[in-house]
Amino acid sequence: MTYTVPLADIRFVLKSLAGLDQVLAQPGFEDVSPDLVDAILEENARFVEGVVAPLNRAGDMHPPTWRDGAVTTSAAHVEAFKAYAAGGWQGLQHPAQWGGQGLPKVVAACANENINAASLAFSLCPLLTDGVIEALLTVGSEQLRQTYVPKLVSGAWTGTMNLTEPQAGSDLALVRTRAVRQDDGSYRLSGQKIFITYGEHDLAENIIHLVLARTPDAPAGVKGISLFVVPKFLVTAQGEPGARNDVWCASLEHKLGIHASPTAVLLYGSGKGEVGEGAVGYLVGEENRGLEYMFIMMNAARYAVGQQGIAVSERAYQQALAYARERVQGRAIEGSAGPVAIAHHPDVQRMLLTMRALTEATRAVAYAAAAARDLAVHHPDADTRARNQAFYEFLVPVVKGFSTECAVEVASLGVQVHGGMGYIEETGAAQHYRDARILPIYEGTTAIQANDLIGRKLLRDGGATAQAMLEAMGGTAAELDAEAAAAQAAGQQEDAAAIGLLRDNLRRAMHAQAEALGFMRNQAAGNVRAVFAGSVPFLMLTGVLHGGWQMARAVLACRKMARAGEGDAAFLQAKQATAFFYGAHILPRAGALGAAVRAGDIVDTWAARANIT
Amino acid sequence: MTYTVPLADIRFVLKSLAGLDQVLAQPGFEDVSPDLVDAILEENARFVEGVVAPLNRAGDMHPPTWRDGAVTTSAAHVEAFKAYAAGGWQGLQHPAQWGGQGLPKVVAACANENINAASLAFSLCPLLTDGVIEALLTVGSEQLRQTYVPKLVSGAWTGTMNLTEPQAGSDLALVRTRAVRQDDGSYRLSGQKIFITYGEHDLAENIIHLVLARTPDAPAGVKGISLFVVPKFLVTAQGEPGARNDVWCASLEHKLGIHASPTAVLLYGSGKGEVGEGAVGYLVGEENRGLEYMFIMMNAARYAVGQQGIAVSERAYQQALAYARERVQGRAIEGSAGPVAIAHHPDVQRMLLTMRALTEATRAVAYAAAAARDLAVHHPDADTRARNQAFYEFLVPVVKGFSTECAVEVASLGVQVHGGMGYIEETGAAQHYRDARILPIYEGTTAIQANDLIGRKLLRDGGATAQAMLEAMGGTAAELDAEAAAAQAAGQQEDAAAIGLLRDNLRRAMHAQAEALGFMRNQAAGNVRAVFAGSVPFLMLTGVLHGGWQMARAVLACRKMARAGEGDAAFLQAKQATAFFYGAHILPRAGALGAAVRAGDIVDTWAARANIT
Repeated sequence: MTYTVPLADIRFVLKSLAGLDQVLAQPGFEDVSPDLVDAILEENARFVEGVVAPLNRAGDMHPPTWRDGAVTTSAAHVEAFKAYAAGGWQGLQHPAQWGGQGLPKVVAACANENINAASLAFSLCPLLTDGVIEALLTVGSEQLRQTYVPKLVSGAWTGTMNLTEPQAGSDLALVRTRAVRQDDGSYRLSGQKIFITYGEHDLAENIIHLVLARTPDAPAGVKGISLFVVPKFLVTAQGEPGARNDVWCASLEHKLGIHASPTAVLLYGSGKGEVGEGAVGYLVGEENRGLEYMFIMMNAARYAVGQQGIAVSERAYQQALAYARERVQGRAIEGSAGPVAIAHHPDVQRMLLTMRALTEATRAVAYAAAAARDLAVHHPDADTRARNQAFYEFLVPVVKGFSTECAVEVASLGVQVHGGMGYIEETGAAQHYRDARILPIYEGTTAIQANDLIGRKLLRDGGATAQAMLEAMGGTAAELDAEAAAAQAAGQQEDAAAIGLLRDNLRRAMHAQAEALGFMRNQAAGNVRAVFAGSVPFLMLTGVLHGGWQMARAVLACRKMARAGEGDAAFLQAKQATAFFYGAHILPRAGALGAAVRAGDIVDTWAARANIT
Repeated sequence: MTYTVPLADIRFVLKSLAGLDQVLAQPGFEDVSPDLVDAILEENARFVEGVVAPLNRAGDMHPPTWRDGAVTTSAAHVEAFKAYAAGGWQGLQHPAQWGGQGLPKVVAACANENINAASLAFSLCPLLTDGVIEALLTVGSEQLRQTYVPKLVSGAWTGTMNLTEPQAGSDLALVRTRAVRQDDGSYRLSGQKIFITYGEHDLAENIIHLVLARTPDAPAGVKGISLFVVPKFLVTAQGEPGARNDVWCASLEHKLGIHASPTAVLLYGSGKGEVGEGAVGYLVGEENRGLEYMFIMMNAARYAVGQQGIAVSERAYQQALAYARERVQGRAIEGSAGPVAIAHHPDVQRMLLTMRALTEATRAVAYAAAAARDLAVHHPDADTRARNQAFYEFLVPVVKGFSTECAVEVASLGVQVHGGMGYIEETGAAQHYRDARILPIYEGTTAIQANDLIGRKLLRDGGATAQAMLEAMGGTAAELDAEAAAAQAAGQQEDAAAIGLLRDNLRRAMHAQAEALGFMRNQAAGNVRAVFAGSVPFLMLTGVLHGGWQMARAVLACRKMARAGEGDAAFLQAKQATAFFYGAHILPRAGALGAAVRAGDIVDTWAARANIT
């Protein structure tokens, strides 16, 4: 159950698919050389493999404990978090002026993927802290930034997001937590928040909660929600933790997975602190704009959860592969003297290749999106920035929705590869299956992602961004035409056949998306329910297609490198094999998903007769 | 978290799709009237809803405990099992001469599905006892039958299957447990068996283990395995439990799910009983034919596990539907005054309909298979018997493989419908997700089922059985043509559109299977690995197709009933809606699966280059 950072694939995707060189050439990254990126990735690998990965199983078996409002994590967990902070890992993607390292998002993405693979439950704490830092840097006052950001970036303090209440999950219009303005400009908060990840713990000196709440005179619905900073301990004039605030952990949830991360019920204003009645909070930005601010951060947080999907997929794959190479059972179907390692059996290969193809494809899509975000922020040309921002925003719900749904599939296959041993908790494969299941739910369910993709990202521009991507994919398909012909001419029959199949299935998937787009454009005005009856299938279709596109680009890059004598020959062959498998087994899903989308009107008509509502 | 037996759907499938009347008309069922079947189903529903269903969550939270070789289950579990035995439920499908009720398999299938839905973990004990009874009745000597079968049928004793050893899971050729013949004709067994479900417990007076082992002079491999009966307590001349045998529970496994069922490591011949060294066992049938005997029972056991898949799907669906109707969150996409129940949202409907469509389709396939088995045993005409036996045998790996894979998908969707609440163990949705995960593994993984489907059931007769089914499906498609035309003529546009889509997607799925069959026939001689590279996709394709066929037959039956003024109008509408959803969202998967099958040669060629083996 060790974990090895997949550095070869990460480097290949960074350089050959995400365009790292172009990112590093932008203003602002003058001090970031390719060598520095390499060095950081290697140091990151050492840290997560040596310090974090060993925590994963132990943390699952020994979750944090709650007593009288305090939460105790294991000593190993505390030590690892201290090492994380000391290593400066929290600051990787944050600006140098706040103590960070100011690296491109695409580089931070690699490091974040790895630490999540090492331990999803551990990494949730830094993930949420990143969100709080980003919120404060984006909309916080100078005073809030000065008070909180350096301590968060250094890992001395950690952050949380407090959105959910018992009656308000996906629907934040229903938030009831109250915030009453005081004479000194601060607020007093009262209410109950649930599902607060790392809402209470002993890893750091202070916990900074970002809380959605309503002021007494706020309008109803989502336009009356404000955003507040509520520290666990008020911060003294010297910048150190002072009086205990009136935010209290009432209990921890008993969850299916990610056991090592404490999920808290938090009570605001229960009178248990040292500050009198009501938790002291500080407004972020302006009143009633809280949800708008949350949406600004949402893309980053959703992207980060999408990466968690890739991470757990990678870890489940590595574990299944190791077991399949070691477990000897059954003779080869084509005949063998004795039993062979199960990795030799065709269906075990199918499962392992499915796991690997989905992992590598979702990684490539995610890194391409991160690189686009870097260009959207740093490129000197406004049109290029806008185009890249549109590309990034389009892909965020896909990275979140598709990568996490794939993670559930991959982790499930990981159990299956282990056979009966996979069902025994000590093996560890079951943990990935349990851990992965939260990913398509938190930070917006897959349906919420699909609504975002269709409502905001797709129909907003009439499908122009999606159309532009289809055109770019057409270019890739044309390159595959040439590559297949070249392979044929060179007498490489097996290569030509595989390239041809990948190209055909890519074109079929493009066609499926184009048809689905057409259906949705036609129905959008008259029958919006028909569109949303296929929203998740459309998101999955988009993920399948973009994964296929990146895998097709990978084949072209591999063959170019091989011709130039660059790279490791075995890696280039294996990468192509995975891409061809994706073309054969995964890309055809696009047809099935597209058919489901296009049946939206019939499905919606009959759903009403199905006694469901 | 209550459970209600889906009697309306069960009755509809029994009568309109599985042909209950034809089954009851066969010799041997003279005493079984449709009214008796109805009465049994109703009594069964009362029992499982009232006695077994409430155990499910409690059993998950309070698993049996082990101490010094003894296993203690909860008092409620013991009481429920006594009630199960007292109610005569164990004997439902067993012959009257052995104390059973001699009901058709298709009727027993309904009852078994329900008790599994009430509690998978509880029902595993009767399921395994059924297997031991069937083994003894099929190949046991008269003395073995007389000694054990009446006590097993009455539920006084329970049974287990002891196949697996640490090095021998799917590959039983590797079994090492030894059995040495004694002068009195009995044997002494020694060795270790793992993953023995209900291998030790306190529910019954005695436990009868069926054990695979090797005699000292047995040939190597699968042809040297014999089958033994090893009782926990030797049976006295009076037929009562006597001396404690030398079979000992060394520990229980810590599993992902089905917590209430104790999974034992059993030591044979560790010298802990009252019989001296070695567990006393009795040969079943002849030496070295153990695996052959296991295969005789295999179809029944695999069928039963397939039913477990349907059962957990039904339970997960009911729970998700109840939550979705109750949970208010978000406005309607088409506009609403305030938030609505989430069951109104299109994507929640998609998830619920996917769950329901897969559940109902797998149920229909399973009951049709069971009815065929009844005809194969009881029909007076030899050709009809043979044809039905071929149909049944073809479908057993599909019922096992497809229904259980669907159960994992359905249980996962059940968690998703619950959102964040689904991830909290107290909600209970996560239990189904954990419980379901063993189903595609035990009693032969999905890959083992696929090997059976392709190697034994498909290629053996050159695909003739599959071809005959495709022809029957063609008849159903033609009936849909007429039905669509009739709906159109009657001005029922929505009906006509839905029927037309179901028909088109059924035909496409048939075409996908025919193409896949063609590929496999072509490759079978020259490249067997290319065939097995797509074995599981082929099994899934077959399941998708057969499910679609049964759902199409359901539409025709519903509309016929509606025209005749029979049945409940709301049920008939809802059933059709589910079938149309299946046609729109599930049947198109056949195309994707078929494409994967047909790429078997390319996939196999490149898999070898993927650094997997």
